Amino acid sequence: MNRRPLAWLQTLRLDPPSPSDKTADRDRLRRALLQAGYPRVSFPLSVMRRLPDEMRRRDFELTAVLGQAEDEVRVIDIGREKVHGIALDIGSTNIEASLFDLSTGDRLDQGGRENPQLPFGADVLTRVQRSMMGGTEELVRVLRTGVNGLIDTLCSRNHFAADDIVAVAVAGNTIMSHFFLGLSVDNIPVAPYVPAVNGPVFTTGREAGLSVNEGALVYVFPNAGSYVGGDIISGILHAGVHREEEPVLFIDVGTNVEITLGCRDWIMTGAGAAGPALEGGVAGIGKKAEPGTISGVRIGRSNRGIDLDVMDNREPTGICGSGLIDLVSEMFSAGLIDQSGKFTGIGEGFRERDGERLYAIYGNGNDGLSISEAEIRNFLFSKAAMFSFLYVFVKSVGLTFRDIKKVYVAGALGCGIDPESAVNIGMLPDIPRDRFIPIGNSSLSGAEMLLLDRGLLDEAARVAALITYREMNEDAELMSVLQGALFIPHTQPELLKGA
Amino acid sequence: MNRRPLAWLQTLRLDPPSPSDKTADRDRLRRALLQAGYPRVSFPLSVMRRLPDEMRRRDFELTAVLGQAEDEVRVIDIGREKVHGIALDIGSTNIEASLFDLSTGDRLDQGGRENPQLPFGADVLTRVQRSMMGGTEELVRVLRTGVNGLIDTLCSRNHFAADDIVAVAVAGNTIMSHFFLGLSVDNIPVAPYVPAVNGPVFTTGREAGLSVNEGALVYVFPNAGSYVGGDIISGILHAGVHREEEPVLFIDVGTNVEITLGCRDWIMTGAGAAGPALEGGVAGIGKKAEPGTISGVRIGRSNRGIDLDVMDNREPTGICGSGLIDLVSEMFSAGLIDQSGKFTGIGEGFRERDGERLYAIYGNGNDGLSISEAEIRNFLFSKAAMFSFLYVFVKSVGLTFRDIKKVYVAGALGCGIDPESAVNIGMLPDIPRDRFIPIGNSSLSGAEMLLLDRGLLDEAARVAALITYREMNEDAELMSVLQGALFIPHTQPELLKGA
Repeated sequence: MNRRPLAWLQTLRLDPPSPSDKTADRDRLRRALLQAGYPRVSFPLSVMRRLPDEMRRRDFELTAVLGQAEDEVRVIDIGREKVHGIALDIGSTNIEASLFDLSTGDRLDQGGRENPQLPFGADVLTRVQRSMMGGTEELVRVLRTGVNGLIDTLCSRNHFAADDIVAVAVAGNTIMSHFFLGLSVDNIPVAPYVPAVNGPVFTTGREAGLSVNEGALVYVFPNAGSYVGGDIISGILHAGVHREEEPVLFIDVGTNVEITLGCRDWIMTGAGAAGPALEGGVAGIGKKAEPGTISGVRIGRSNRGIDLDVMDNREPTGICGSGLIDLVSEMFSAGLIDQSGKFTGIGEGFRERDGERLYAIYGNGNDGLSISEAEIRNFLFSKAAMFSFLYVFVKSVGLTFRDIKKVYVAGALGCGIDPESAVNIGMLPDIPRDRFIPIGNSSLSGAEMLLLDRGLLDEAARVAALITYREMNEDAELMSVLQGALFIPHTQPELLKGA
Repeated sequence: MNRRPLAWLQTLRLDPPSPSDKTADRDRLRRALLQAGYPRVSFPLSVMRRLPDEMRRRDFELTAVLGQAEDEVRVIDIGREKVHGIALDIGSTNIEASLFDLSTGDRLDQGGRENPQLPFGADVLTRVQRSMMGGTEELVRVLRTGVNGLIDTLCSRNHFAADDIVAVAVAGNTIMSHFFLGLSVDNIPVAPYVPAVNGPVFTTGREAGLSVNEGALVYVFPNAGSYVGGDIISGILHAGVHREEEPVLFIDVGTNVEITLGCRDWIMTGAGAAGPALEGGVAGIGKKAEPGTISGVRIGRSNRGIDLDVMDNREPTGICGSGLIDLVSEMFSAGLIDQSGKFTGIGEGFRERDGERLYAIYGNGNDGLSISEAEIRNFLFSKAAMFSFLYVFVKSVGLTFRDIKKVYVAGALGCGIDPESAVNIGMLPDIPRDRFIPIGNSSLSGAEMLLLDRGLLDEAARVAALITYREMNEDAELMSVLQGALFIPHTQPELLKGA
């Protein structure tokens, strides 16, 4: 396989200087790079400073770490044996990172942590307001500290020094990309909603303030506007939407539902608030995917016994988005809730506490895990928002669900959504189940792909250019579809098939 | 006049964002720069960070400071009203700088100081050896401190902040350019004599460690090899050697004599050690041009009275190179020294002290200024070296002095050489006097020209490529010409006319 990572080792066998060839060191390296097929090369002075010794130490067989920065090749470092890179997904809630050996393409490690901006507001807009009131520096600093902490963890766990990281590919939504780069977000929430930058950014470890090689090539995915960030573009790249001949759907569910519909000729993206319910944000027991999280639920139709899938087979401590979809679907099918999500009171497990109606999922009494009726209604709002966005979105381009041959489901639906359950409650359309393709954290996966294949730089730019943003809340039909979607599966079930 | 300085202010009237044009700030600036004729533009992240506020503060009429870095335009800074630049000549002995308003082309100030590396050795090779023995960092640091001190002085004297300096053009010999950039000189004195860099260097204020704008465009002239540095290329640019149809001579006299002969089709440069005598380095009374320096001498043919030109009409405290040429010429013409430089003892003013034979130039006794016979012999060696280099150099390309229509005399001949005196003692060839054109510190002047005209970047590169270096000490004829040249004017006076 022909590897073309974002940064790579180039071994150059230089002609040693001689009385008949007194070409200076930098100019000799430049000549060798030209011969190797790199006509446009930039050198930081710091590399030039180490060049004479390094050339001679290696007897003029020099290994240079090169990086692709737009149409130019940058000499990132010299004299390294190995090159490592990091793919970063900076989400509003979580930061995820993967560590790669760029010479083999192997993923060496992966890790994540909460976005340290969370205490400033779970909602991104709260953080933007904080920034506009003079908090930019602090928000930028805590995020950078968090990112560097994650990088440091990955490096020390694998016995690498910061200098060993020579490339970083970063995907995040528009706000997060801005905070990451230390750019102002102040104009994003104000009409006409203009970010500081949409195009891709190529910068260095030093300029970005990362604890990596100071010359490291740091690439930040382009945004397609204030509402369509690099995370979506990275996800589209990963799913390959832009290579499809027929339109496919790409759904990224987090705090927002982001829907992309398109193919190689056009891509339309829209986003809408769906509440945090789908991202494990259910008040009482919501949890992200980690050991102890309930990721699947089955309830017996006759005895109403509950069977739980718990990650790592541990004592359950919470439930993630896909577990919640299962739970609601099973409760509905077992007759524990009605179409509107109200508790039927049939069977055991129901009780009341402080006027709140609860249903026990695990254990009994106060030590167990329960879900409240209000939480289920809250969840139904999220599922209604998601379905109605989907319906209106697909219809607006003259298609119906039946026309869609692939539906990529990405994002924080934690442990992997079960399409059967999602269709059962009317969250996803009623099409053949094998058309649903779960793709996990596609934003991180896209960043990983690009880190390992610089040929995708052009593709990312092409995707960004293809995308048109569609304002979804302006649609007149949305409200009527949404109201019906508050019920399970829908007051007009034919809409699930795309009527 | 169409100004094209190395860095310039570009006022861009940007279309304000609107619902129909949500182009992001950086991308909007990039588009405007493209429309203004700059297709290749690079932005440091630090500029991007200030862009959103600056654009809006100025109601989308943005002033950007642009700089030419090879074939790319760099956004150095934004939101400045004025742009200033510094031309630097880094000589082995002295550092000279000029401060310019780049928008008007006016020279605002000029200053100089001793090269703070002098205590490490007056001779450059001593410093190189020191560097090879582990002293690089210290040599680099003291030079940088000196350069920054000079820049700070110019800035504070003119009430500028460091940030106001957005461009720096630097000329120096190969060794000095390397020290300035923090590059290793270790391989320069060792066969095959390969510098770290010969091509031009475009870097930033920050990378170069200068107390100027961190994004300032810092340009360092190319070298044409270990022995032909950016100072010569800058001087050639200033004199315009590379534009001449017929060959002209360009002589730069410092610690070394550097001779360039050429025209638009070819340029040949050679250098040879001539001792420090011509650079005001006469042991006792030598001095660089400054108030109190004797720059001209006349001695009455009959009464042998001495008439001195003293800079600023102050009490004389020393004599510079051109004053010394006058002095020796006049002493010879007045019969005070013979052909070999020996004191004749005729007339007053001669005395002995501690076995040293002295001649009083100013005042009497121990408080005055005297020159010793040994100093004159020392000077004659320098003049002999210079003449014989010139003779051999011109002859080697099949020309004689008569063929040379212009002789540019540059460098440390301090206060401006008197060709009549120089010809009289056989230092310069006996050709019509109006062919000698004194051009002072041509290295600084060339850097100034380039600072004010980025069109010269290509010319500097062309000059560097045109130059061939000629090793002068290898010439068999040199020694015989030099021996005769130790006498005034020469044992074979016909050689002065280029026989």
